[in-house]
Amino acid sequence: MKIITSIGELQQTVDNERISKRRIALVPTMGFLHDGHASLIRKARQETDVVITSIFVNPTQFAPNEDFSRYPRDLERDMMIAEEAGCDIIFAPTAEEMYPEGFKTSVKVGIVSEKFDGVFRPIHFEGVATVVLKLFLAAKPHRAYFGQKDYQQTLVIRKLVRDLNLDVQIDIVPTRREADGLAMSSRNVYLSEENRAHALKLFKALKTGEEVFLKGEKERVKINAAMRAVLQEIPDAVIDYAAAAKAADFDEPDFFKSGDDIVLLIAVRIGNTRLIDNMIIP
Amino acid sequence: MKIITSIGELQQTVDNERISKRRIALVPTMGFLHDGHASLIRKARQETDVVITSIFVNPTQFAPNEDFSRYPRDLERDMMIAEEAGCDIIFAPTAEEMYPEGFKTSVKVGIVSEKFDGVFRPIHFEGVATVVLKLFLAAKPHRAYFGQKDYQQTLVIRKLVRDLNLDVQIDIVPTRREADGLAMSSRNVYLSEENRAHALKLFKALKTGEEVFLKGEKERVKINAAMRAVLQEIPDAVIDYAAAAKAADFDEPDFFKSGDDIVLLIAVRIGNTRLIDNMIIP
Repeated sequence: MKIITSIGELQQTVDNERISKRRIALVPTMGFLHDGHASLIRKARQETDVVITSIFVNPTQFAPNEDFSRYPRDLERDMMIAEEAGCDIIFAPTAEEMYPEGFKTSVKVGIVSEKFDGVFRPIHFEGVATVVLKLFLAAKPHRAYFGQKDYQQTLVIRKLVRDLNLDVQIDIVPTRREADGLAMSSRNVYLSEENRAHALKLFKALKTGEEVFLKGEKERVKINAAMRAVLQEIPDAVIDYAAAAKAADFDEPDFFKSGDDIVLLIAVRIGNTRLIDNMIIP
Repeated sequence: MKIITSIGELQQTVDNERISKRRIALVPTMGFLHDGHASLIRKARQETDVVITSIFVNPTQFAPNEDFSRYPRDLERDMMIAEEAGCDIIFAPTAEEMYPEGFKTSVKVGIVSEKFDGVFRPIHFEGVATVVLKLFLAAKPHRAYFGQKDYQQTLVIRKLVRDLNLDVQIDIVPTRREADGLAMSSRNVYLSEENRAHALKLFKALKTGEEVFLKGEKERVKINAAMRAVLQEIPDAVIDYAAAAKAADFDEPDFFKSGDDIVLLIAVRIGNTRLIDNMIIP
């Protein structure tokens, strides 16, 4: 496995691979890899010829009060996990390589960026869209793989790709969960044992929302209330949102229709840790 | 010469050309080609293997009060001029192809977008940056050619390319002028005979600014005043700006230094026609 830190070197490498008619995959990550990331890499390995995993904790998607500086990092361990899963190239640029002095360009994706996490993290998706575009332009992939865990991010990226006619196929891979249902996340390492136990309520709330919906409840606020009731069992939790919406475009009708694909979305702060989770009900 | 109107077909075409190790050029235009455009195509022909000329009057870079609807168009004539100059592929998408329903993404390039034309055409450079990015992602060129006539646009595009690590080499080609000095522009067709005569003052003002500067005047407002005095000879002209600035970054010091590369920039409205011109003094 090769480590590349320069954008120019990566571009030259992928240009040569493309001339050799090899199909390129990009798995963008912020590192501190877990089995969710590994599942993306394994899928990319099966479906393409050259698998690039980018590892970059992107400063522009964190607000000053967020956890950028303490976000967990362990490049050595990441390299072992990535290689084991079938990665060919790790792209690990510095912040200076990605954002040289005088950097001043941003990409804004409308509407799907503005709800839910867009309310609580107002600069987040502009940072995500800009860095993902830069990573796509650096790695020039045919396909890119993202986890469903960051569901709103997947909609933002699909919109970015469509609106900018980026020639990249986006693959969304189901969320990996621990045996007890907790969605895998690099941020789980922040959780104390007690908070780890409380965090299970997120998945329980989603299951409750699903159950209520499948039993015939179509009124949006009632589904939301059912999820919220479960989350409120967590002592001192701050519920940013617990919401049902149409899965394709985050439309929030008063009543869903039978044929609607819906997504249940949750964001909760437990202690210093902000956790998100979601579930699609087709 | 081939005509392509679909982004997907263009991407597939250039992917195949790239696999054959052929170098791709893009010459982005709004059509109604003149010899300035032809000089870009001829240069591209000499320096690359596949020359693509895009012809697209981009609605998003015009404000509602501007000349989008009456902007001159003549695709038949454009095709003859482009082919004669050595173009291989005309890319002429519809507005619906470039901006399908629900389109909502924009790219903002800071600072260099905000002065001069950025003041008088506040949405212009966001429209330019977004459409040029989309054209680059559609045509995937190794090199792209722009005229110096739109000097501020060239800085915006250079900044876009640098900040987004677009793997495209930008070539700026000197402004083509009529025998009497008038900068070639598709908008010159708007000019009455009388206004056409008045329009010569733009080049005269630039020559005056150059002369004043080369004779040793380093005070910025005095250079500006010398250019403005020439432009004020035009009856009923509205001078948007007549300004000297550092050529690299539009910095406007009170006094230039001897080693400074400067650019003189002019925008004037004569009747219904807004004309721009510029001159670099190395």
